[in-house]
Amino acid sequence: MREKVLINDVGPRDGLQNQQRVLRVEQRVQIIRGLLKAGVRSVEAGAFVSPKAVPAMAHTDQVLAGIAGDSGVDRQVLIPNAKGYELARDAGANTVVLVICATETMNQRNVRMSVEDSLAQAQGIFQAAQADGIRAVGCIAVAWQCPFEGATDPGKVMDLAGRLFEFGADDVNIADTIGAANPMAVRSLMGALAREYGAQRLACHFHDTRALALGNIYAALDADVRKFDSAIGGIGGCPFAPGATGNAASEDVVMLLEQMGFDTGIDLIALMEVGSMVGSMLDVPTGGRADTWRRLQVEKDAPLT
Amino acid sequence: MREKVLINDVGPRDGLQNQQRVLRVEQRVQIIRGLLKAGVRSVEAGAFVSPKAVPAMAHTDQVLAGIAGDSGVDRQVLIPNAKGYELARDAGANTVVLVICATETMNQRNVRMSVEDSLAQAQGIFQAAQADGIRAVGCIAVAWQCPFEGATDPGKVMDLAGRLFEFGADDVNIADTIGAANPMAVRSLMGALAREYGAQRLACHFHDTRALALGNIYAALDADVRKFDSAIGGIGGCPFAPGATGNAASEDVVMLLEQMGFDTGIDLIALMEVGSMVGSMLDVPTGGRADTWRRLQVEKDAPLT
Repeated sequence: MREKVLINDVGPRDGLQNQQRVLRVEQRVQIIRGLLKAGVRSVEAGAFVSPKAVPAMAHTDQVLAGIAGDSGVDRQVLIPNAKGYELARDAGANTVVLVICATETMNQRNVRMSVEDSLAQAQGIFQAAQADGIRAVGCIAVAWQCPFEGATDPGKVMDLAGRLFEFGADDVNIADTIGAANPMAVRSLMGALAREYGAQRLACHFHDTRALALGNIYAALDADVRKFDSAIGGIGGCPFAPGATGNAASEDVVMLLEQMGFDTGIDLIALMEVGSMVGSMLDVPTGGRADTWRRLQVEKDAPLT
Repeated sequence: MREKVLINDVGPRDGLQNQQRVLRVEQRVQIIRGLLKAGVRSVEAGAFVSPKAVPAMAHTDQVLAGIAGDSGVDRQVLIPNAKGYELARDAGANTVVLVICATETMNQRNVRMSVEDSLAQAQGIFQAAQADGIRAVGCIAVAWQCPFEGATDPGKVMDLAGRLFEFGADDVNIADTIGAANPMAVRSLMGALAREYGAQRLACHFHDTRALALGNIYAALDADVRKFDSAIGGIGGCPFAPGATGNAASEDVVMLLEQMGFDTGIDLIALMEVGSMVGSMLDVPTGGRADTWRRLQVEKDAPLT
């Protein structure tokens, strides 16, 4: 029995929110259906944020409607506040993700609130979610490095995670929003969080800005984390965080994990086809280096494991 | 006091040997001088191989002559055999690097010899090097994965390393020639080698084919390895190993190490300028993601550490 690792594909949200081209609802549904068909069991399907601020996330309710019915699939959505929570609940999301930044400056830029106000808001939302039977994830952004304040105090992240759990978060997702974490810092912070709160309730979210996403995932695995965000094609980046580039590419993350003997449940070839489709839809080169593996595989030269 | 890590820049050899454009001796010297000026203390300056088979490595003696005189610099050269050794010695190399492949098929393709014959040859060369006061490095290629035979038996690598040390190798360099190793396999093999032979006599050489070079370096660091090959600009690849793409980019490796608190002695900005120069000389896009860091740095948004 290989050990399971859960991939949550955030491409339909984090990947699409900041592209030149805004995809239609049908295209967003087509991407998610492709991901599910490849074996992905958890997707961040969209966000209930202002369609004026983030036009690419408009009509997330219709996207959720388009993928309703698949049982055993976690349909997550990002919500910025209590109103977003209500929209998500009414649209049938299984899981809501609420982001709190570990630094004041970034939190102000992201949601125009102090961290303390964001926490108070989280408490109300998590209580409502518990009552409604909806899973709640608290995501701590800029957990290692903030584009405005520099290195983030690990103690601050520890405290924030504790309060999010206390307020009813089912999971806490630790995010390297700008891709500036390094494996030693990841091993250290995730190890401390895992000892304090248990690794099974933790997830990680890495960007590949400095080519370190896979190294950071390995370091988090070493701290017993078994849940990771990644985005099909490595698309993405935060519109409010300077320097944030693509997410860890799902294709590369699956390749890494399967090669190391973990079971993602995902068919890599099928996943790569979804990646190509996304690249065509957006008319951008999609990242990910797993295609090198595919080429080798076709040549029967270098098996995956 | 930060812990030191030694970077051996193999760009002038592994990086240039398989390019469309063959550089002139003056250009090769200019690259190496740039590296040394940036603080690099060890370079693989060239190879004494057949100029017919690898025209880019012709006149390595002139390259060595062009960089003679810098004290405290390790001027390594690759040699395929005893004749290569004599040429290297006469040309003033400090260190000779002899490659043995961990699999029979790859060794045959590389040097048209059995592994056993390569070992016998290594013994003679290492003895001569010892007598001549020249440092000898035994490099074990395809140490994790062979493009022809698949996964490499770690026991085979352990045995080969033991015999190379026994024959007088000062260091043994463990090479992931096609960039197919993963961090767990690296941690495991380098940990076993370090326990058996001591980490201070080991080095690693990674290619970035699957975007795992930095993750693999972190895993090797975790096994106490403190010597790494990398190539300026991430250029390179083995002409005889299908699927081998660029080396770990020196810029990225320095960024990773410095960010994690190690001391490479290398000025990253100066190194990146050498990388741009190499890209212009070869008319190829050079790899490496450290330029993202530079951009962030200039914006004063995300400090390196």
